[in-house]
Amino acid sequence: MIEVHAFATPNSVKVPIALEELGLPYELKAVNVRKGEQKEEAFVTLNSNGKVPVVVDDGFVLTESAAILVYLAEKTGKLLPTEGAARARVFEQLFFHASALSPAFGNAGFFKRSSPEPQPIAEARFTTEAERILGLLDTKLADQAFMAGEAFTIADIAHFGWLWRRQFPGLTLDGRSNISRWYETVAARPAVQRAITRVEALVEPPASAA
Amino acid sequence: MIEVHAFATPNSVKVPIALEELGLPYELKAVNVRKGEQKEEAFVTLNSNGKVPVVVDDGFVLTESAAILVYLAEKTGKLLPTEGAARARVFEQLFFHASALSPAFGNAGFFKRSSPEPQPIAEARFTTEAERILGLLDTKLADQAFMAGEAFTIADIAHFGWLWRRQFPGLTLDGRSNISRWYETVAARPAVQRAITRVEALVEPPASAA
Repeated sequence: MIEVHAFATPNSVKVPIALEELGLPYELKAVNVRKGEQKEEAFVTLNSNGKVPVVVDDGFVLTESAAILVYLAEKTGKLLPTEGAARARVFEQLFFHASALSPAFGNAGFFKRSSPEPQPIAEARFTTEAERILGLLDTKLADQAFMAGEAFTIADIAHFGWLWRRQFPGLTLDGRSNISRWYETVAARPAVQRAITRVEALVEPPASAA
Repeated sequence: MIEVHAFATPNSVKVPIALEELGLPYELKAVNVRKGEQKEEAFVTLNSNGKVPVVVDDGFVLTESAAILVYLAEKTGKLLPTEGAARARVFEQLFFHASALSPAFGNAGFFKRSSPEPQPIAEARFTTEAERILGLLDTKLADQAFMAGEAFTIADIAHFGWLWRRQFPGLTLDGRSNISRWYETVAARPAVQRAITRVEALVEPPASAA
């Protein structure tokens, strides 16, 4: 069975969503990033980059959430068109997510919440960039149902991870009706709901709430 | 013939390198990012994200340098293994480049050179991250010839773009013998040299040097 080393993070959630959509059984192994377990030796042996998620499929260890999405889609022949423009559009969105949306959201959140001292230019830089990206996606979704065209693909799963966690960088979808409609559509899929339930169960309740 | 809208930038150079390696004819169209031409209407019509490179292949417009690499590799059946672990390793590196190396190098350069005021925490954050990534790649290249294994692939082309432009974020390969050896090997390939010559020719000499 496929092992997924993950936590309730924007990148982690993509993998269980894909596995649920594809109907593949998997075992989730919690890596508590709030306790820094992704930097501990047991995990760094799996991924020297010290990041979740990691998949282990019959001994084959693979890192990078979007590479895992491509691997699972090609393993099953689903969620990724096999040729032509429709296929290229999925990769275009996967790389737009990886190189633009994901670092903008992550860094906007860091400079808003985690920086030891205010860095106003940095905070503004990444927040402005994140808003610009949301605007581009909202415009795209005015003309098409999903991120890479009319079909639900791994490009939607990739973008969903950070949009699900948009509170961290303090972003909203208010006033962006197309991406809001897309988000609600994706969030309502039974496979997506099952995956979210499973990754959220990896997080122990805080001691004060026990 | 394939049109490549590009300039002498880390992401642009990847596309002519791939085209030269694959033996595909192409026409370079200069988009002078120093003059902001990538934000002008003529270009934004091609790529609403306002970034080079963009490829136009028989009317099909594709953005995102790594998505273009995948498209060209699959169009020709070269530089990307067709299955198995070797294929997954290429995608793992393409996404590691897009999500980790590229934003770290780009932001380290911005906060070192272009920020209107010093942001020391931001500058240190991205410089430290870029150095960490160089260390990971140097370790990887101790055990294998190229970024995704023993064969030269589009993963090498992706990483080469920013390593070729490592002066912008003020980074060096000093003391990192494995990645230095890799860089020299890739830079010596005739196709890589032809591509660099062509993208550098897009940059007009400054008026003072005329």
